[in-house]
Amino acid sequence: MYSEAAMSETIEVVAEGGVTSARGFVAGAVRARMREDWDKLDVALLYSETPCTAAGVYTQCNVVAAPVVITRKHLADGKARAVIANSGCANAATGERGTRDAVEMAQLAAARLGLDPHEVVVASTGVIGIFLPMERMRHAIEAVELSAGGGLAFAQGIMTTDTRPKQSAVRFGEYTLGGACKGAGMIHPNMATMLAYVTTDAPVAAPFLSRTLKDAVAVSFNMIDVDSDTSTNDMLVVLANGVAGGEEIAEGHPMASAFASALTHVCTELAKAIVADAEGGSKVIEATVVGAASAEDARLAAREVVRSLAVKTAVYGHDPNWGRVLAAVGNSGCRMEEAKTGLWLVDRDGHELCLLENGSPQPLAAGAAKPHFEALEVRFRVDLGLGKEEATAWGSDLTEEYVRLNSLYTT
Amino acid sequence: MYSEAAMSETIEVVAEGGVTSARGFVAGAVRARMREDWDKLDVALLYSETPCTAAGVYTQCNVVAAPVVITRKHLADGKARAVIANSGCANAATGERGTRDAVEMAQLAAARLGLDPHEVVVASTGVIGIFLPMERMRHAIEAVELSAGGGLAFAQGIMTTDTRPKQSAVRFGEYTLGGACKGAGMIHPNMATMLAYVTTDAPVAAPFLSRTLKDAVAVSFNMIDVDSDTSTNDMLVVLANGVAGGEEIAEGHPMASAFASALTHVCTELAKAIVADAEGGSKVIEATVVGAASAEDARLAAREVVRSLAVKTAVYGHDPNWGRVLAAVGNSGCRMEEAKTGLWLVDRDGHELCLLENGSPQPLAAGAAKPHFEALEVRFRVDLGLGKEEATAWGSDLTEEYVRLNSLYTT
Repeated sequence: MYSEAAMSETIEVVAEGGVTSARGFVAGAVRARMREDWDKLDVALLYSETPCTAAGVYTQCNVVAAPVVITRKHLADGKARAVIANSGCANAATGERGTRDAVEMAQLAAARLGLDPHEVVVASTGVIGIFLPMERMRHAIEAVELSAGGGLAFAQGIMTTDTRPKQSAVRFGEYTLGGACKGAGMIHPNMATMLAYVTTDAPVAAPFLSRTLKDAVAVSFNMIDVDSDTSTNDMLVVLANGVAGGEEIAEGHPMASAFASALTHVCTELAKAIVADAEGGSKVIEATVVGAASAEDARLAAREVVRSLAVKTAVYGHDPNWGRVLAAVGNSGCRMEEAKTGLWLVDRDGHELCLLENGSPQPLAAGAAKPHFEALEVRFRVDLGLGKEEATAWGSDLTEEYVRLNSLYTT
Repeated sequence: MYSEAAMSETIEVVAEGGVTSARGFVAGAVRARMREDWDKLDVALLYSETPCTAAGVYTQCNVVAAPVVITRKHLADGKARAVIANSGCANAATGERGTRDAVEMAQLAAARLGLDPHEVVVASTGVIGIFLPMERMRHAIEAVELSAGGGLAFAQGIMTTDTRPKQSAVRFGEYTLGGACKGAGMIHPNMATMLAYVTTDAPVAAPFLSRTLKDAVAVSFNMIDVDSDTSTNDMLVVLANGVAGGEEIAEGHPMASAFASALTHVCTELAKAIVADAEGGSKVIEATVVGAASAEDARLAAREVVRSLAVKTAVYGHDPNWGRVLAAVGNSGCRMEEAKTGLWLVDRDGHELCLLENGSPQPLAAGAAKPHFEALEVRFRVDLGLGKEEATAWGSDLTEEYVRLNSLYTT
């Protein structure tokens, strides 16, 4: 279980940090007009001066974009050294030509950097069903300038409908770990995909890196919901170049748990940033489920609360309809006994307001729940009363603006 | 598989028919102010002059309203003879008092009708977490007038945010089968619950009735989506009183398949009526998946297309972003191979427009897809190219009005 308290002893936040906070990483981005109708940084490159161990997690969607297929192959040996990413075109549902284009993106970046194409991670995000403008891609990959201060440009280069770049970095002992991501939802028009890249100058054994990444994702990116749609292009890759020296970190190493905390912290911050910047979202819903019979039960229940459209709209409308939260828990498939279930609202200072205890509604002063619903973060705590497992999930609310952004745009 | 063609040979639609179309059923409803703030028919009673075989299906939500718990018990013997239902208060998350109130509702209806309470189906729909006004309930059950023309009043009595009553009835051979339902979604504020009641004057063996109901629901009520939330109170009950005579219908009876067609037809019409009247919905999305390796794969894919918020918003906005449909199929968990997948738009005359074939996007004339998206029913056909199974699902679109209805109301 991710614990803020345990974490703060071992890691320290790096203000404004990102993918180039760790030593030995350089990055940059250029405006390459991957779409005719925009003018933003849209081809981004990240490079490590030395070889890295690497691990990735990918979309579970059965329609997988070409760059995801290529990246999985390239990371199969647990090694990588660069990321080439574009926004504006997802290179998804593009058949064999799409596969050729993704392979060529890796080749072009490898040629530019003097690497083997298998050392290059390839990513695209944007409209589905159209082809990459490869001539522009070639020029862009030549033109991008790499620097140790290029982390922000990289974060901007992968943005689509995000309103702000999303970065996070921490120090743990001698090491630095930082990341950038772009936002969520199959939205406006299919432009949203979750892309995230994390770098560290710690030396990390590939199997440990892969395992730790899965654990970190389980409590961060897998616990957020914007609109319940998984993109064809979702990808999270972590690169560890070991430039800061020391013995390789693996299971049992004195720094193993500090590394896991650092990775979990950055993944959680990035995931929450996606929710906070959700298209058309006005606030963040946090659902903590305690007393679950299993960790999976806790995760199911927490995720369903932040997924439920009934909860999302109630939060948006400041409507203290807590029955919707209870019904979401009931719909999650978690083990529960209504007569043992409790529900609380929690404000930013940790004050709790009991809505339901042992399955019975609690008498409330008129208007007592309303301030909790008016806060920018609306926090629910559910106690299933069945065990000791817990989980937390974060979701955006659902607003008229979400519908407007996702419907009134016409390709 | 439900087939319109096979059906039309054996059954005939009864215009304006409902729960009292079958012989021997009477019904009615009264205004009883189950909520202070409305004035509509809100306590409804349905009664069969002779004993019935009965079967029900219920919410899969783990938070189950008291009336659902009581009805399950009462139908355990496959027999029932009356339905007492109210709108305005869901009697859900109401603890032991809620259970006592639901039991008393059955007792009151039984006393009025000279039945055993176990012969009474109890249903409530409305706000969660508040108690039934039992004094008003007592008066209402005394006051309701029952008649053979009371089907429409019954359908109106169970409505909450529905804008119109939902009824359907058919004749098959000597028999009549009709039903009424109310609409869907955990919405405005938790008022929506799906309730449906079907009656027939055919004599049907209880085990066959139960099995046939499950099959009918699998292709009708279980294939619709408004907002992906299952209510605490969902219930569908069918009563067969045999008043029209003849040998009891069971497996192998000459009328068995006509009865199954009739039940499937009425359930499908009622389910589609819910989608067409979805809160804030502006049109109906129909997704037919063919070529699936299994029936379950077909159902998963079809349901996910009509569930996806990205698809719902695209349809609302007349945005021909077919990539969202493909991604929804990919997210459904069905077996698929992108390179074998095809996608078509189908207009009301059955004309098809190919968007994707064998995983490759097809060249489209500019604007060719737009008229399909502008129709009141937007129909997608997906061919998975893996087998022979198929399924159809129906969903509403997602509009700003949905968000407004579900958020700006404040209790």
